[in-house]
Amino acid sequence: MPKILMSQHDSIRAVEWKDNHLVLLDQRKLPHNEQYVQLYSAEETADAIRNMVVRGAPAIGIAAAYGVVMAARKSYKQYPQDWRNRLEAEKDVLMNARPTAVNLMWALRRMCAALEGIQGDPEPVLLELAQRIHQDDIDDNYRMGELGSALIQPSHGVLTHCNTGSLATGGYGTALGVIRSAYSNGKIEHVYADETRPWWQGSRLTAWELVKDKIPAHLLCEGAAASLMRQGKVSWVIVGSDRIAANGDVANKIGTYSLAVNARYHGVRFMVVAPTSTIDMNTLTGNDIPIEERSQDEVLNVGNQRIAAMQAQAWNPAFDVTPAALVDALVTEKGVIERPNAAKMAALMAS
Amino acid sequence: MPKILMSQHDSIRAVEWKDNHLVLLDQRKLPHNEQYVQLYSAEETADAIRNMVVRGAPAIGIAAAYGVVMAARKSYKQYPQDWRNRLEAEKDVLMNARPTAVNLMWALRRMCAALEGIQGDPEPVLLELAQRIHQDDIDDNYRMGELGSALIQPSHGVLTHCNTGSLATGGYGTALGVIRSAYSNGKIEHVYADETRPWWQGSRLTAWELVKDKIPAHLLCEGAAASLMRQGKVSWVIVGSDRIAANGDVANKIGTYSLAVNARYHGVRFMVVAPTSTIDMNTLTGNDIPIEERSQDEVLNVGNQRIAAMQAQAWNPAFDVTPAALVDALVTEKGVIERPNAAKMAALMAS
Repeated sequence: MPKILMSQHDSIRAVEWKDNHLVLLDQRKLPHNEQYVQLYSAEETADAIRNMVVRGAPAIGIAAAYGVVMAARKSYKQYPQDWRNRLEAEKDVLMNARPTAVNLMWALRRMCAALEGIQGDPEPVLLELAQRIHQDDIDDNYRMGELGSALIQPSHGVLTHCNTGSLATGGYGTALGVIRSAYSNGKIEHVYADETRPWWQGSRLTAWELVKDKIPAHLLCEGAAASLMRQGKVSWVIVGSDRIAANGDVANKIGTYSLAVNARYHGVRFMVVAPTSTIDMNTLTGNDIPIEERSQDEVLNVGNQRIAAMQAQAWNPAFDVTPAALVDALVTEKGVIERPNAAKMAALMAS
Repeated sequence: MPKILMSQHDSIRAVEWKDNHLVLLDQRKLPHNEQYVQLYSAEETADAIRNMVVRGAPAIGIAAAYGVVMAARKSYKQYPQDWRNRLEAEKDVLMNARPTAVNLMWALRRMCAALEGIQGDPEPVLLELAQRIHQDDIDDNYRMGELGSALIQPSHGVLTHCNTGSLATGGYGTALGVIRSAYSNGKIEHVYADETRPWWQGSRLTAWELVKDKIPAHLLCEGAAASLMRQGKVSWVIVGSDRIAANGDVANKIGTYSLAVNARYHGVRFMVVAPTSTIDMNTLTGNDIPIEERSQDEVLNVGNQRIAAMQAQAWNPAFDVTPAALVDALVTEKGVIERPNAAKMAALMAS
């Protein structure tokens, strides 16, 4: 297994290959229970993706790649002559676990492309590739961390939204990776994290990572972010993305767009951190990105506790779109684009 | 008792005088339990204010006025020769129940000024004054409702924040009063209400009022407000205020300022609705308004349930300040100021 680089402020891995199986940190139980799940098959891996044991597009892709390794082992053991066809069926189970997660398709495509040249037992080849996908993700995050950190002038703090850290990726994180690097490099001394309603990714996941990695932080309600900016406490807002359109418009967790508008008003800069696999050149603008509306119960209830008045209704879009014009810097593993637009995006993707 | 005007979309009263005592709707129990508390003394009234059975500056002032009535009755009965001195002590108990609520002082000052001319039993005179304070508040709210509604062009909906309705006032409400009027007048067909973290005034109180009064509404997380504006669903953001400075800067529930910034960015108009008793001409600008920071437990926990990671910290300012330049209209019972500034504020207060 390749060496997984860990630095002083980077102690968490939510996805790990151990001996012969996949180990996932169960994110549904965080922050109060740090519980690991041991998986020995593709079916179990697909279930874990479907049920949100693992979440975050890059993390899902990596888990699925390891799922293919276990599927190939089983197929080859049971049907040494016909293992390729048997594997195909298991791959489909993984593919359908969460059909909208782009990195899941991307990782499965890469794994399947490697099958063609294999003679004999496929496990060693596939395991090596899955571990390379995993390690590449971490390396890319470290690289984006340094590129993003280099943009930050020494200042008190930065603000982030949702969870974009080790829990959402192979390790280190995208936006939270930049924050880890900036803190390690002495660029910032404090992190502010939106609690991120309605799913509390900030309170449950980002705060947990920052406590673990000894990076000083305060949570705040989304409504307090504008006051934080007005007080000059943050120099940058740093977020991840779920999909970036060809013109640089950015879809991300609901609440991101409000931060971008407020950042521009207050002269705070706005950074998006995402690998190029998040960029979808087939989506022309943010208007073409479908925005999932989730169950209103996520807003009306907290756990099993009803918060809102009975009969009250809620509107619960899961994502919003920040126009490229509000993005000061887009950080990818291929480099940084300042003030992204269609031409700059095309040049980056061709590089 | 003066007639309390009730209209089709105005069915709630949180403060009522019944025969010989004060009845308060216990707002700590809302939205799931509609429980009324019967109070027979100034001490009980002070406790109810301190413990948030009643909240909202105008509602607190009215409750305290009725508390003085019950204190006077007791003092006069027990000490017919010395009732004025005995009453003074009970007034102080009320005054200290929540020392920062401006309307509490204002109502107690009005009640005490009336004591001077009284001969014999003070109760009838004081009860009449308390009921006048109560009715004036409702009348002012109805007047602000019509003034604010007149500013609104027929449109799909408006957005509000926190609770500014019957629960926070003598009845009808300030910002929510404008919304009640606009709905009754056919100006709008839908209300959007921020859930209002961390205290859920939107989910618990505003949604409860709107369901009760059959006004169609959706709750949303604060983070979704910018998307709502971008989609053109709201023509105005309408909010109340806790204190307005002499230059027109507006302190209100945390989250208000972010809405004001987003409203200006999206071409949505921003209305503040507050009686002139909320205007503090001794506070020159918003910078001079002290912003209360409340316990971080309000952000980290929901009820007794810990949401955030252990050891996580939170920043929890209860209010923010919206600069006058972002206010399109300030609606008071004395009239409307568009784009408030120091000169217009001074002219309004002198009128």
